[in-house]
Amino acid sequence: MSLETFLKESRQRFEDELAEFLEIPSVSARSEHKDDMMRCAEWLKGKLTHLGMKVEIISTPGHPIVYGELMEAGPGAPTVLVYGHYDVQPVEPLDEWETPPFAASVRDGNMYARGTADDKGQVHVHMKAVEAYKQAKGSLPVNMKFLFEGEEEVGSVNLEDFVKNNADKLACDAAVVSDTPMLSPEHPSITLGLRGLVYQEVVLRGPSQDLHSGQYGGGVVNPANALARIITQLKDENGRVTIPGFYDDVKDLSPAERTALTDIPITESEFAEEAGVPATGDGEAGIYWLERIWARPTLDVNGMLSGYTGEGAKTIIPASAMAKISLRLVPDQDPRKVREAFESYLKSLKPEGVDMEIEFHSDGLPWAADPEGPLFRAAASAIKGVFGRDPLFIREGGSIPIVPMIEQILDTPVLLLGFALPGCNLHSPNEWISLDLYHEGIDTMAHLYDAIAKEYAK
Amino acid sequence: MSLETFLKESRQRFEDELAEFLEIPSVSARSEHKDDMMRCAEWLKGKLTHLGMKVEIISTPGHPIVYGELMEAGPGAPTVLVYGHYDVQPVEPLDEWETPPFAASVRDGNMYARGTADDKGQVHVHMKAVEAYKQAKGSLPVNMKFLFEGEEEVGSVNLEDFVKNNADKLACDAAVVSDTPMLSPEHPSITLGLRGLVYQEVVLRGPSQDLHSGQYGGGVVNPANALARIITQLKDENGRVTIPGFYDDVKDLSPAERTALTDIPITESEFAEEAGVPATGDGEAGIYWLERIWARPTLDVNGMLSGYTGEGAKTIIPASAMAKISLRLVPDQDPRKVREAFESYLKSLKPEGVDMEIEFHSDGLPWAADPEGPLFRAAASAIKGVFGRDPLFIREGGSIPIVPMIEQILDTPVLLLGFALPGCNLHSPNEWISLDLYHEGIDTMAHLYDAIAKEYAK
Repeated sequence: MSLETFLKESRQRFEDELAEFLEIPSVSARSEHKDDMMRCAEWLKGKLTHLGMKVEIISTPGHPIVYGELMEAGPGAPTVLVYGHYDVQPVEPLDEWETPPFAASVRDGNMYARGTADDKGQVHVHMKAVEAYKQAKGSLPVNMKFLFEGEEEVGSVNLEDFVKNNADKLACDAAVVSDTPMLSPEHPSITLGLRGLVYQEVVLRGPSQDLHSGQYGGGVVNPANALARIITQLKDENGRVTIPGFYDDVKDLSPAERTALTDIPITESEFAEEAGVPATGDGEAGIYWLERIWARPTLDVNGMLSGYTGEGAKTIIPASAMAKISLRLVPDQDPRKVREAFESYLKSLKPEGVDMEIEFHSDGLPWAADPEGPLFRAAASAIKGVFGRDPLFIREGGSIPIVPMIEQILDTPVLLLGFALPGCNLHSPNEWISLDLYHEGIDTMAHLYDAIAKEYAK
Repeated sequence: MSLETFLKESRQRFEDELAEFLEIPSVSARSEHKDDMMRCAEWLKGKLTHLGMKVEIISTPGHPIVYGELMEAGPGAPTVLVYGHYDVQPVEPLDEWETPPFAASVRDGNMYARGTADDKGQVHVHMKAVEAYKQAKGSLPVNMKFLFEGEEEVGSVNLEDFVKNNADKLACDAAVVSDTPMLSPEHPSITLGLRGLVYQEVVLRGPSQDLHSGQYGGGVVNPANALARIITQLKDENGRVTIPGFYDDVKDLSPAERTALTDIPITESEFAEEAGVPATGDGEAGIYWLERIWARPTLDVNGMLSGYTGEGAKTIIPASAMAKISLRLVPDQDPRKVREAFESYLKSLKPEGVDMEIEFHSDGLPWAADPEGPLFRAAASAIKGVFGRDPLFIREGGSIPIVPMIEQILDTPVLLLGFALPGCNLHSPNEWISLDLYHEGIDTMAHLYDAIAKEYAK
């Protein structure tokens, strides 16, 4: 049976299995889902074993890593490492989901559920590509290593140690990661840049408990007002982050890179419509909008809580105020250096009358790739074979800290080739993946094995 | 039996009945307590009827008013109107209560429960004073009208219409309100000033749902950052509210009033300790701390919510951000004028890229009294009779909009004589009342009836 026929006949079966994968609520940030994380790892182990892989579940201080090997191409063939993650973001606000987040639902050719795009659906693309190749064409022409972690959404806190301590086991000629969107269904895309991350939580504590705002207002420092003032001071009127030294290591784009950005076939108004915002315009003044998202650092409040937030009115001075604040970084900013500068700056902004606690959540390196060499040629050939056109080179404003980490520790090029779409509600309610692209992704990966084998044999 | 003996023998019975009153969760701000509000009104009706009063429960578009009359002193005697409220503040954060908020608990001579001080405990003082006077001394020398509302904590939204439409029914020679603290157990106090209030809720809406902060950060306006900037702009570096025209109608204290304030026997460090704050110092720079709380307007965030506030990290740009913001006003600021100016100012601060909604919660007039005339002489005499000393004249930073409203509509002097204490956790977890002061309050009120009858007969 040809690959095409096999893929065509397997569509429903693949989708049913993906739905099964998505229905395990593998929310890594929530301790109540600890057992679900292990259940999800066991599910993966079963499926990879069925592919003929040698599979291990590796415990960490957090959630387990699932690692599988299929080395049937032999020592003369190139080895490909696929990285993905089986954990997902929390699902709140739950009432904004049209169908439950952990019950896959198909509407208009898209499958909806938490993790469809980020990243279970794309992990499954790789699993089904191996199955399809083997069923349709026989044994793989490349050796395969699957590295699926359960902590990407909480900062991959235990992965670096694992990769460092297992560099020999993970050794490869090329790494492939599918955890990104394409620009549009017509534009299969290779992602050449990622932003880094520093994520902190700041708590201001004032009175030992909530106080009557009449009896105390004007006499004690209000932690909510004080926190608002601190947040405001983190950016200037032109949208520039005010942390001292923050821009020192930012590598400006070259004129050629700037031109390439303005050639990307998407307009700011399309972007605003897709984001569902009244107007765009945040970030640094005077910089092209796509550069602001893809190649400039920024700072965002991700969550903020203080005092009484229920129905009606309660006249209190809150005992405390909390904000979760993340910074996105670009090459060559160093997350550790930024984190220290941020903490010092926050402390310098603390007024009298409140205490400040800073909790560090996670960080990640920024990354940029040079699209040269056999891996990128193989990817272009596979994309051309399936989509009939050349790949578009894009960047991504999000962070995948594992990418620069794998590149550095394993000394391997990394290909970011994803099959999600912009607007697919990553980290938001009603996350979805296009089922056509999911199946084309499987096809592309199966093509990629041959293309890599061919390119690396040259 | 003498009044003193009766009061002594009734202590435990009075406290048991107060506990029963406190155990009805009459939270006016929460719709799920609507039935409890009616149950509480019925409970009051039963007790007032038992005192011999003619009692009505009057429905409003919100929670009912309980009104009772005891006119046995006859047309030649003065009539006293007592105002109080049987509704209480919400109890969150629930886990900070040492004993449940709706189960009265006595520790170290204080009774703990929501509403002990604000205002059920003080309402009960008046009920038991009538009972004690009648049992110990016979019929009252004054006519008595009890007006207990169920919406004080949600801005007394239906009371003004009721008072206006029933001015004849409520007609009186003097009004007494016990909804304030004394300065200390050694300083029985008459409150001569209250601040007014304007309470608004502001919501900024950006993206149609939470967005991935990597994919969109730098491209769309973040409602949480934008709200922080707006809040910050509401006050300048010196703690002055920046709403245009805000201070135009503020009546400065006279030099004599300023001197009286500095003579009040409480220090800023005692205040800070009692409030449980690391340091004081909010409000307008260069103004004596007690004046800032009692006689200067201010602005406080009472609650703030945006984005992800659960455990761990979630990298989103929140779809919206909300703040509850209240302003405390002083004579002669007009709440309606301030509200309009505040709304216009908020709108002027709204950046592009977010929509703004403003919800008005409540307002209230500021108030200041002149301690002259028979009512204040009678109060001084009653206090001297029970506490053996002259009253201290204080102000209160909180708002009791009913006080200026009763004064104006019914054209009557209002005596604010309360038996709570600073630090009794009004609006906070672990609210309490001193049982000694509760009983002395009953005694004082029973003395007050005779003193008023005597002063008004002159």
